[in-house]
Amino acid sequence: MDRIAIIGAGPSGMAQLRAFQSAKAKGLQVPEIVCFEKQNDWGGLWNYTWRTGIDEHGEPVHGSMYRYLWSNGPKEALEFADYTFDEHFKKPIASYPPRAVLWDYIQGRAEKAQVKDLVRFNTAVQHIHYDDATQKFTVDVEDYAQQRHYSEQFDYVVVASGHFSTPRVPVYEGFDQFHGRILHAHDFRDALEFKGKSVLLVGSSYSAEDIGSQCYKYGAKQIYSCYRSKAMGFKWPKNWSEKPQLLRVDENTAYFGDGTSAKIDAIILCTGYLHHFPFIEDGLRLRTHNCLYPLGLYQGVVWEKNPRLFYLGMQDQWYTFNMFDAQAWFVRDVILGKIALPSIDEMQSHTQTLHEKEQRLMSDEQSARFQGDYIKRLIAQTDYPSFNIDAVHDIFMQWKKHKKENIMGFRDKVYRSVMTGKMAKPHHTPWLYALDDSLESYLEDEAQREAM
Amino acid sequence: MDRIAIIGAGPSGMAQLRAFQSAKAKGLQVPEIVCFEKQNDWGGLWNYTWRTGIDEHGEPVHGSMYRYLWSNGPKEALEFADYTFDEHFKKPIASYPPRAVLWDYIQGRAEKAQVKDLVRFNTAVQHIHYDDATQKFTVDVEDYAQQRHYSEQFDYVVVASGHFSTPRVPVYEGFDQFHGRILHAHDFRDALEFKGKSVLLVGSSYSAEDIGSQCYKYGAKQIYSCYRSKAMGFKWPKNWSEKPQLLRVDENTAYFGDGTSAKIDAIILCTGYLHHFPFIEDGLRLRTHNCLYPLGLYQGVVWEKNPRLFYLGMQDQWYTFNMFDAQAWFVRDVILGKIALPSIDEMQSHTQTLHEKEQRLMSDEQSARFQGDYIKRLIAQTDYPSFNIDAVHDIFMQWKKHKKENIMGFRDKVYRSVMTGKMAKPHHTPWLYALDDSLESYLEDEAQREAM
Repeated sequence: MDRIAIIGAGPSGMAQLRAFQSAKAKGLQVPEIVCFEKQNDWGGLWNYTWRTGIDEHGEPVHGSMYRYLWSNGPKEALEFADYTFDEHFKKPIASYPPRAVLWDYIQGRAEKAQVKDLVRFNTAVQHIHYDDATQKFTVDVEDYAQQRHYSEQFDYVVVASGHFSTPRVPVYEGFDQFHGRILHAHDFRDALEFKGKSVLLVGSSYSAEDIGSQCYKYGAKQIYSCYRSKAMGFKWPKNWSEKPQLLRVDENTAYFGDGTSAKIDAIILCTGYLHHFPFIEDGLRLRTHNCLYPLGLYQGVVWEKNPRLFYLGMQDQWYTFNMFDAQAWFVRDVILGKIALPSIDEMQSHTQTLHEKEQRLMSDEQSARFQGDYIKRLIAQTDYPSFNIDAVHDIFMQWKKHKKENIMGFRDKVYRSVMTGKMAKPHHTPWLYALDDSLESYLEDEAQREAM
Repeated sequence: MDRIAIIGAGPSGMAQLRAFQSAKAKGLQVPEIVCFEKQNDWGGLWNYTWRTGIDEHGEPVHGSMYRYLWSNGPKEALEFADYTFDEHFKKPIASYPPRAVLWDYIQGRAEKAQVKDLVRFNTAVQHIHYDDATQKFTVDVEDYAQQRHYSEQFDYVVVASGHFSTPRVPVYEGFDQFHGRILHAHDFRDALEFKGKSVLLVGSSYSAEDIGSQCYKYGAKQIYSCYRSKAMGFKWPKNWSEKPQLLRVDENTAYFGDGTSAKIDAIILCTGYLHHFPFIEDGLRLRTHNCLYPLGLYQGVVWEKNPRLFYLGMQDQWYTFNMFDAQAWFVRDVILGKIALPSIDEMQSHTQTLHEKEQRLMSDEQSARFQGDYIKRLIAQTDYPSFNIDAVHDIFMQWKKHKKENIMGFRDKVYRSVMTGKMAKPHHTPWLYALDDSLESYLEDEAQREAM
């Protein structure tokens, strides 16, 4: 029987496990699956850890998740087509759940599928090598619990290790003199560390927006954010000032491109992540910047030079969980032989066309549409439950508008599920005042709260 | 010609380069040497970086060095026998130099030896494999600058990558609820981050002692340190309280074994480092705790199961730079065939005896003596300049006494060089008040200072 290695049991790896289980439930014969997960539980980034830097096994901490993180997009845009929020929580919830709630949701589906015993936890993949002669992958792993290094052979490998774990850490003049903490968003954990402080956020994408908002919510004295090309441009609170590019710092001051400067206590580098796969031999290794349609991956997932290797979720992401699903179902059907792949030339040419098309996208609206169209194409080729992607697109556009209107209030909005047609229920407390982000607090009913 | 790979260009790797250059200068034929260094300069830990966690290439930051670090032992105990401080600085300096001064010193010898072109900087070793058939090591590396992965064959490998880079990070109950920063000593950089704060140091070894002292010197409000087995027991300042073991923390409080508790703002884990060599195949990988005489290494350096592989500096360390020298000269002479190795059984039995002897050591005095005797045995077998190790031992004992007398003042003491017989010169400013740790400030003469 063929053997498949899945690297990582985060949302993508869990989608792949679920895809195969779904086929099996329909009576199909599926290959033997081993999922390697270096963390002690599944959930990937959603598995919060207080650790930063290096983990208890001497390896880089995978998690970039921080305390108090709430989804920064509506849950209606990431809902699984085969397992709705209503099915999981048995009642309507609001549209921007905190981390623990989303983790509970993705776990719920995987637990229902009973695939946990396919995952080898505390087991880090250290090297993947392909042998042309045998047409097998050798996967070298370290079992942390046993302190044992071993190798196994596989016919297919699915890389689902994510690309929000390895920080891109630039240097600016004066960093070696600065007297406060300099950290990357990857190492950000608890906004209360910055209560009463002046914080500089370097960057203008989701991390800067959200970590800055966290710091504001939890009492930072002053927030500065700075951009290289384009300001985020939201209506920031009075103590948040958006600056052009950082030129340099000294012991306690940041200097910006507009000639202004600011005294700061800490610097948080919200400068993105690297696609980083040191455990894969060079010829199989995806090397890309963060974009919607990376070169080298046919249909966004098939490693063109060796179509027994797949990468899930390596795109820049408007869509997340349900895109991973669409990808996982597609990969499954390629492995099961239900989808035939064209020649390498055809695959490369197909990818090239879409990669170039991405270069010509002019707006967020077009980008979201581009990724939605990609998902539509994937879903059309498998039995993943079809859903109204145009309606999700509209949710993204509403979300953008709501953020524009009120960056500290957009999470109080609710949206209609495209899966169930039902409206979400407003949360009992506005986001800005909801300091407790626990599952229990989030799921409390009005009645429970009144009784307290 | 035989080829030697040296992994790491820190103090140990630099010692190995110097050892071979010294032989070459005496007219001996030496093998081809390639030293791989993942950092952009040599010096290992002494090459300070503001970075923490993951470096610009997505790999763990090697450095554990912090701002304001001054040697925690007298320079007279680590002086090179073939390159004295007086030769380097051309004038007497004090006994506890800051980082930049020590870095300058170790660089000085290496530069004099003109070995820098043997080092491939920005090049990380990813995998080392030995082939029994060819009797060669394959070393896989990643050249960061070129983004190129390549392999080369070597006859010998010297692992000099250190063992103070991979933090040992324990977990305590409540860490996932604590509201402040939790970091390992490995990620500690600037004590000013903790000015005005209450800091908990977990641990009772050199890191806790020194990082706590840094925090005190730079204005922490309150320091707590806690131990598992034995208090450090120094005469701490009034705002430093030593506690028995940490039981748990909650959002802002630490609870100790004696029933007391303390409000704290940050937790620094001074809990040691792992011997961690994920880049070496399992059968060649040293797995040891931190001790004076690890099993598996004949004479502390020869990998018994394959004596073409060597490890430098893997001991717990009383002696440092000159011990690495003694080791490097020994390794060199094994490779050059000037020292014959006994059978594997004899090597293992020799190591076992000394490993067991270490278990019976009862005091610091005995431990330092044990390591001094080890170095004497190494030096007796090579042409490394002999020096008065008993005199160094006496310096260690004085150092211990000076610390006992005044933990915040011991760095103001001076000692006599066993290499030159000359006394060190007291520093112009007591350590506690010397806030500028730059090379320039440290080397200033009284005359220069008075003129300012």
